[in-house]
Amino acid sequence: MIGRLNHIAIATPDLQAAAQRYRDCLASPAQVSAPLALPEHGVTTVFVDTGNTKLELLEPLGEQSPIAKFLEKNPEGGLHHLCFEVPDLAVAITTVKASGIRVLGEPRIGAHGLPVVFLHPKDCGGVLMELEQTSATAG
Amino acid sequence: MIGRLNHIAIATPDLQAAAQRYRDCLASPAQVSAPLALPEHGVTTVFVDTGNTKLELLEPLGEQSPIAKFLEKNPEGGLHHLCFEVPDLAVAITTVKASGIRVLGEPRIGAHGLPVVFLHPKDCGGVLMELEQTSATAG
Repeated sequence: MIGRLNHIAIATPDLQAAAQRYRDCLASPAQVSAPLALPEHGVTTVFVDTGNTKLELLEPLGEQSPIAKFLEKNPEGGLHHLCFEVPDLAVAITTVKASGIRVLGEPRIGAHGLPVVFLHPKDCGGVLMELEQTSATAG
Repeated sequence: MIGRLNHIAIATPDLQAAAQRYRDCLASPAQVSAPLALPEHGVTTVFVDTGNTKLELLEPLGEQSPIAKFLEKNPEGGLHHLCFEVPDLAVAITTVKASGIRVLGEPRIGAHGLPVVFLHPKDCGGVLMELEQTSATAG
């Protein structure tokens, strides 16, 4: 099942300040990407490269942002979800469903152009988990 | 500053059930360690190897567990902290303090036998961050 940790998503109410903190202090400028607006996903993102994985800083974009509710509950921001790579999303969905883990909605094309799906945090020990297929075609 | 993501700590009220979920469904038996009691750290741990990093499942152990309060607020468990590797903990502490990020207490020897320190989540975008020196001696 789950392979590499693709990224850790961190929601933030102020992407510019968060990126600055990583650029100036916690990481280095070379590790921090430019902001990228993804209106179809309701977020603007900045990536922080840790060498072995990446942090995905997320700020809400637009009225229907999927991270708006999280930021209402956690106004300073915080750890939002973990994204794991799987070779075949359809197989992964069958496996998790067979164990009683609920899948949130239908698979769709995620922020990296690859098929993704989210798993219900109540079925995953309180952790919102995203599964991302490692390539556009399964296998 | 921060290098590799060493681990993601996930607090759980039931380590056996959490480990079972990773062993049977989310991961595979080969990726999941046996439980390890760390009474001096107030936790029992199970590691889940994702290839590029690891999940550290944590269950409270004893009366003074550092994750007891988190589980009071999040009874199902959830994402607790991120641990990043740094080559020299003293240098890292000087750097973060110079940027106004508060360090929680004094550096101590962590669960892996290496010097660690925690940073105040209010100064890190709502994320509790642990810094772990990559070897017993800095450099």
